Amino acid sequence: MTDDFSHLPASEQALAAGIAGTQPAVQRRAMAKAITLLESTRADHRARADALLDALLPRTGRSFRLGISGVPGVGKSTFIETLGLHLIGLGHRVAVLAVDPSSTVSGGSILGDKTRMERLSVHPHAYIRPSPSSGTLGGVAEKTREAMLVAEAAGYDIVIIETVGVGQSETAVSGMTDMFCLLQLPNAGDDLQAIKKGVMELADLVVINKADIDPDAATRARAQITSALRLLGMHAQHGHPDRGHEGASLWLPRVIQISALKGAGLDDFWSAVSTFRELQQASGRLAQRRQQQNLAWMWERIESGLRERFRAHPEVRGQLGELTAQVREGRTAASVAARRLLDLMT
Amino acid sequence: MTDDFSHLPASEQALAAGIAGTQPAVQRRAMAKAITLLESTRADHRARADALLDALLPRTGRSFRLGISGVPGVGKSTFIETLGLHLIGLGHRVAVLAVDPSSTVSGGSILGDKTRMERLSVHPHAYIRPSPSSGTLGGVAEKTREAMLVAEAAGYDIVIIETVGVGQSETAVSGMTDMFCLLQLPNAGDDLQAIKKGVMELADLVVINKADIDPDAATRARAQITSALRLLGMHAQHGHPDRGHEGASLWLPRVIQISALKGAGLDDFWSAVSTFRELQQASGRLAQRRQQQNLAWMWERIESGLRERFRAHPEVRGQLGELTAQVREGRTAASVAARRLLDLMT
Repeated sequence: MTDDFSHLPASEQALAAGIAGTQPAVQRRAMAKAITLLESTRADHRARADALLDALLPRTGRSFRLGISGVPGVGKSTFIETLGLHLIGLGHRVAVLAVDPSSTVSGGSILGDKTRMERLSVHPHAYIRPSPSSGTLGGVAEKTREAMLVAEAAGYDIVIIETVGVGQSETAVSGMTDMFCLLQLPNAGDDLQAIKKGVMELADLVVINKADIDPDAATRARAQITSALRLLGMHAQHGHPDRGHEGASLWLPRVIQISALKGAGLDDFWSAVSTFRELQQASGRLAQRRQQQNLAWMWERIESGLRERFRAHPEVRGQLGELTAQVREGRTAASVAARRLLDLMT
Repeated sequence: MTDDFSHLPASEQALAAGIAGTQPAVQRRAMAKAITLLESTRADHRARADALLDALLPRTGRSFRLGISGVPGVGKSTFIETLGLHLIGLGHRVAVLAVDPSSTVSGGSILGDKTRMERLSVHPHAYIRPSPSSGTLGGVAEKTREAMLVAEAAGYDIVIIETVGVGQSETAVSGMTDMFCLLQLPNAGDDLQAIKKGVMELADLVVINKADIDPDAATRARAQITSALRLLGMHAQHGHPDRGHEGASLWLPRVIQISALKGAGLDDFWSAVSTFRELQQASGRLAQRRQQQNLAWMWERIESGLRERFRAHPEVRGQLGELTAQVREGRTAASVAARRLLDLMT
């Protein structure tokens, strides 16, 4: 590919060339700078970041995007580090990004701690970036999506996006990846929680970690989750758009057992991922999923922007408090108040 | 209460007086006219409807709002008819409204069929109104909420809002009622579907209908759902804001068995509803839930209005198609396209 970044201002030109280039130290620095620029809230930074993204876009989209979720304690870090080193051994370059909206509240995210993946983080073929630590879930997810594009432009061919079971973050990560894997403990009730939260139905693959600690429990959990997936799948037509029974080549969610600490089951895991990837590519569903994700992302950003503009509108700001109080106390019907506020904007 | 409708235009003054009045035939006609006005999309009708709603508002809010959901075939109509007649026998006036977004597609809703509740629909103390049959779920829900206010202003003290298990309609109904009841069949897997769809966690009461047909299955289903509710409740702090273990006076979701056809279990049902209502009232949670619902409703309408205005904006309309195509094909980053479209509005 011929890269032409000459239309960019000098500073972004250097960043783009660095990201697209082949010098590891220069590339790493350029990536860090670009992602910092993307995370800035200053309007002039944002315009520069948009120009940079546009220029890098033709180089993106050629990685496999793997989402990994699981509650704290399930062993995500150990699993991702083991997996990352395994993939690097197979010749891949691996980027690990995170979506953790709780980091805004807690001030420091467990996902932000690079030291928890000590061996992977220092490997020249790995790039680890913690969760953006400010903004709403939508904002955090947007920054991670954009960082993913930067990593892809830099030639990372496996992008792992991890998240903890906080709020709607699993939905966000499932909405930006090609495959969504759910790590579970072999505990009773864990699967029910995942079903309740709607996470189980997002999962393309369920991974029971720490299966070696209590093999009987792991076997029970596997049977239970498999039967739950089967029952959920029975009514797939009302649910997840990526599910269905239209063809034999379609993937049906699976359950596997591993022990990340002992490295057991990693081959099974990667073989399941590879099968999924091949099926999705051959059926065209991978491309379709990305198109849907792109459109959903655009609309999510549009709606977020509309809300921001609404709240910032001087007349709305002047009356929102009073009308909110009236609605809360039942003195004005909610629909009437909404129309009054909207009419202030015209 | 002294009603003062003198500030209204003559036509709405007559409607409001008719609704607030005591002449059954006049009231029924005024209600139907008012609801038709509320359902109109004409801007001048809307302004008149808003004025009418504002005038009626002080008379609203004194009913108990009961949401009832269940998949087709569960026996909702029979249950609601039996319940409605039972409540009228106790001295109540009962309004039955519906939220069925599928009626827009199917052209005729099962919920729109008054003949399915033959005895209740002709009773002078009952008022039955089918689902509004046009618009999105948000629009349909808004019209039903407003119709509920009209029914309350007319003195109906029990408002039943029913819905089928279609899309997000259960969430909408749970978001406009004081108590949400889920009707289930005594079938394996039915409860899992409800958990998956997030409906189980909305339920304040789960009712297993047709328990007489297969008592063993009903007993198994009850045990299964009770255990599921217990497990879901264990982690209530991450879930439903109305759940928790802060006080012994708090309601925990229950499961009861009935047979609507035989009228069995109706006393149990109404006793559970009454206990719930008393606890919620005493703890202040009923008022709190309504306040939250009002605010959520206002914001839902604001966001819907913002989206409509965005799509109707001339410059946006001119470029939305092209930018959508670019985003779908990965030629423009979604976030960049969103910002470009938003900038067209300023």
